[in-house]
Amino acid sequence: MKYFVTGGSGFIGSNMVYKLLQDKNNYITIYDNFSSGQRSHIEDCLKDKRVKLIEGDLLNLPLLDRSIKEHDFVFHFAANADIAKSMIETDLDLKLGIITTYNVVEAMRINGIKMIAYSSGSGIYGDVGKTKTSENYGPLVPISMYGASKLGAEGIISAFSHLFDMKPWIFRFANVVGKRQTHGIGFDFIRKLKQEPTRLEILGDGTQSKSYIHVSDVIDAMLSVIKNSKNKVNIFNVATDSYITVTEIAKIIVEEMELNEVKFVYTGGDRGWKGDVPIVRFDLTKIHTLGWKAKYNSREAITLSIKELLKEL
Amino acid sequence: MKYFVTGGSGFIGSNMVYKLLQDKNNYITIYDNFSSGQRSHIEDCLKDKRVKLIEGDLLNLPLLDRSIKEHDFVFHFAANADIAKSMIETDLDLKLGIITTYNVVEAMRINGIKMIAYSSGSGIYGDVGKTKTSENYGPLVPISMYGASKLGAEGIISAFSHLFDMKPWIFRFANVVGKRQTHGIGFDFIRKLKQEPTRLEILGDGTQSKSYIHVSDVIDAMLSVIKNSKNKVNIFNVATDSYITVTEIAKIIVEEMELNEVKFVYTGGDRGWKGDVPIVRFDLTKIHTLGWKAKYNSREAITLSIKELLKEL
Repeated sequence: MKYFVTGGSGFIGSNMVYKLLQDKNNYITIYDNFSSGQRSHIEDCLKDKRVKLIEGDLLNLPLLDRSIKEHDFVFHFAANADIAKSMIETDLDLKLGIITTYNVVEAMRINGIKMIAYSSGSGIYGDVGKTKTSENYGPLVPISMYGASKLGAEGIISAFSHLFDMKPWIFRFANVVGKRQTHGIGFDFIRKLKQEPTRLEILGDGTQSKSYIHVSDVIDAMLSVIKNSKNKVNIFNVATDSYITVTEIAKIIVEEMELNEVKFVYTGGDRGWKGDVPIVRFDLTKIHTLGWKAKYNSREAITLSIKELLKEL
Repeated sequence: MKYFVTGGSGFIGSNMVYKLLQDKNNYITIYDNFSSGQRSHIEDCLKDKRVKLIEGDLLNLPLLDRSIKEHDFVFHFAANADIAKSMIETDLDLKLGIITTYNVVEAMRINGIKMIAYSSGSGIYGDVGKTKTSENYGPLVPISMYGASKLGAEGIISAFSHLFDMKPWIFRFANVVGKRQTHGIGFDFIRKLKQEPTRLEILGDGTQSKSYIHVSDVIDAMLSVIKNSKNKVNIFNVATDSYITVTEIAKIIVEEMELNEVKFVYTGGDRGWKGDVPIVRFDLTKIHTLGWKAKYNSREAITLSIKELLKEL
């Protein structure tokens, strides 16, 4: 199969690239503008002749159109990674989440490519407290432009799949952690503690509680769902049904970094920033019924990712 | 109150403008590019000094920003009216539904305007057969770019409302018919029959069955909901819980036009065009519980609108 991976040098994208390379019949084109992805992530795989890198922007439709030709399957990971930034740059996710996704499916349409896997997220569900959201949950009332962009992109993919006979798999991820992470709480906390090892500023009151999933589980889930779910539009939550708080994560990091007497300083409030969803709970019946379950729970995923990050950072 | 009405010279928009003018304390700015709206629709109201017209495009954010200043409330009606066209011009609804809506809320944010009523539609629910969709229905899998643009716009409005403390009312309309209609089935059938009074081409097999609502009911519903629902985000279906088929509509038109022996020629298939949702059913519990109910059922709304259209066309 010839795969086209947007954001292929980013966090989840690069993990997918390495996984796909394990099958010797696969060829991969990475399309990335290195806005949050990093060259170092894909250095190793670029040694493989089956991998091609195109440094390009998804907002550049003519380049995208030329680059995507003759591929069989598109993994669309590229997106803005800085959720809080849309408070000051309000059109960031419109551009990097919605218009880019339109460009991806439009380039697919022009070139007759039918299959796409899209990385959506729990942000589309909005702020619904401890309600376990299934894929059928509504109303979808996102509280961040990131969430809104995922919702708009899902809608565009869904419309194109109907109008132009495409086959999409839409994945609504929990917080993904692990190797080659470029952002996120563990990433931030480690960087802060390396700068100042006795004090850690924690956004919010630390009780924010979410589902975390290790990127290896995410890759495994995606490939399993793509293989086993063949509906017209396939929408799946990909998460763990366990949860961990921000303060607990901070404690794990302190322990893994072997630090002593770190003072936690809370900025206060129930959430990290405006647009942050403090409590995230998933109903995972659909993907469990399909036969897939995460290997690592939230605590294990976080702990493993911290160990991995400490080697990288 | 100072109202800003996008698409104010269009079908539903102009009806809202006339209604708002009945309260002598209201001032209205119509913002329209006349792409589907018509000057004749607002000729009468422009004689009123409380009405100001700005001929402008919602894609022109600087003009929109200047124009929207010092208004209290935004009615956002402007959108692409030709749903089928996105098959050939695939970015039409992206531009005229999603980016324009982003521009509207962005201009509101810049100017500190908090209240917006948005005309969404049943298209966000996708093709779910006879399932009665409530406002909580999911998953939202639109089959047209029109539906996708409504979903994306809802998401953006929802995100802005949270991030910048706006208060939105989102209305998911059935097929709206009535005075100053600029498109739609009755409009098309009358034009076709005026050209060729013995033969009517009907898209699909004629069994498509949807909810129609008269524009006077829509205006009434919107104002009633805005007055009585004060949640953070207010989402309401606005429809009738009665249904009428395309063939029945054709028969009503033939009767109202006093034609004889019109041959109905069906193009066949279960729907009018790709992206058309053939069966639409609403769960109206939410708006009925709030105390609002449509005055006209689907058949009455269609019949009344045909009489009105025959005077106009």
